[in-house]
Amino acid sequence: MSFALISPDISYDRVPLQTPIRLGILASGSGSNFEAIAQAIADGKLNATIPIVIYNNPNAAVVERASRLGVKAILLDHRLYKRREDLDRAIVETLRQHKVDWVIMAGWMRIVTAVLLDAYRDRVLNIHPSLLPSFPGIRAVEQALAAQVKVTGCSVHFAHLEVDSGPIVMQAVVPVMGDDTAETLHQRIQTQEYRIFPLAIALAAHQAQQPTTNN
Amino acid sequence: MSFALISPDISYDRVPLQTPIRLGILASGSGSNFEAIAQAIADGKLNATIPIVIYNNPNAAVVERASRLGVKAILLDHRLYKRREDLDRAIVETLRQHKVDWVIMAGWMRIVTAVLLDAYRDRVLNIHPSLLPSFPGIRAVEQALAAQVKVTGCSVHFAHLEVDSGPIVMQAVVPVMGDDTAETLHQRIQTQEYRIFPLAIALAAHQAQQPTTNN
Repeated sequence: MSFALISPDISYDRVPLQTPIRLGILASGSGSNFEAIAQAIADGKLNATIPIVIYNNPNAAVVERASRLGVKAILLDHRLYKRREDLDRAIVETLRQHKVDWVIMAGWMRIVTAVLLDAYRDRVLNIHPSLLPSFPGIRAVEQALAAQVKVTGCSVHFAHLEVDSGPIVMQAVVPVMGDDTAETLHQRIQTQEYRIFPLAIALAAHQAQQPTTNN
Repeated sequence: MSFALISPDISYDRVPLQTPIRLGILASGSGSNFEAIAQAIADGKLNATIPIVIYNNPNAAVVERASRLGVKAILLDHRLYKRREDLDRAIVETLRQHKVDWVIMAGWMRIVTAVLLDAYRDRVLNIHPSLLPSFPGIRAVEQALAAQVKVTGCSVHFAHLEVDSGPIVMQAVVPVMGDDTAETLHQRIQTQEYRIFPLAIALAAHQAQQPTTNN
């Protein structure tokens, strides 16, 4: 599986997608990436629907966002499942009930297992606030500041078992300013996340809809 | 020690430098970065002179380049020194004879030791063809291709004992194209190396010439 280049200068804002796709969103927090994806759909930039948002934390603000956007949201509280695999089995069941094609980890703070990755093989996308392979794992923005890099960014990639690994679909770059805090830098990165995540979903789905070739 | 941000959009091509600096260049190969630095000096973009180029390989093409540019070049063949420290002692002696202020590793393929780094503390700069901390070590361009990143670049950084570590002074970004080979990608990176290395030298020297502050 190979993916087209997306450079820092993304010169288009829409990847044509012949067949609409059904997205299942996994979110643990505010759901701002979820809203960016929903907005891209509303704007006709991403040929998709969102039949379901799954959240794991009863206090996640994503639920209000989903309500406002008229998207169904279901709580699967990870504390009610003994093992990670049990949570993932419930997630897969919910996704299947809603006929989901692609699983979108939009700030999903749980480690996913082979139960989910096997059920949706090459159909699980994650976004991470760094230019992978730099700064995987938690507190990526703080890691970048500590390393004194002059540029950082975000990466949309296929989720694999190893955290923040898997083929990269798209990356965007932002400068690190001399007076940046983790907060100001994170905001700059998030602006790019909202821009590339819908595009990367469309690109990955577009490539999956193409007849198989050798590259 | 902290350094001003340089973003991928370097919007200037000259850092003012009140006092001219004397550069000692260490090169093992073709010396194309050396020539880019010499050109920046000739163009008035870098207030510096190059009293000496040191090369370690009798066949390095840098010697012809130095000759053409009228810069003195001295061979210090690493095979004539038993230990890395012995080579570095000869280098330091040569640099001192030529009253060098800053040591510039421009494609220097030898690991430097504390002998050199202590003699020129915080005055040794290296360039590496990746967005550090991604892809340190050899074959950085091949590493980037293998990792399927969509963006890569180059980094100018202070040399520390650990290879390709040390505070980053400047980075530039290039896209990775879908049909890139290591050669085409390396060429794209080198174009940026020639652009930022003279700027980064000027920036580092400029900061060193400023009165000491807390940041």
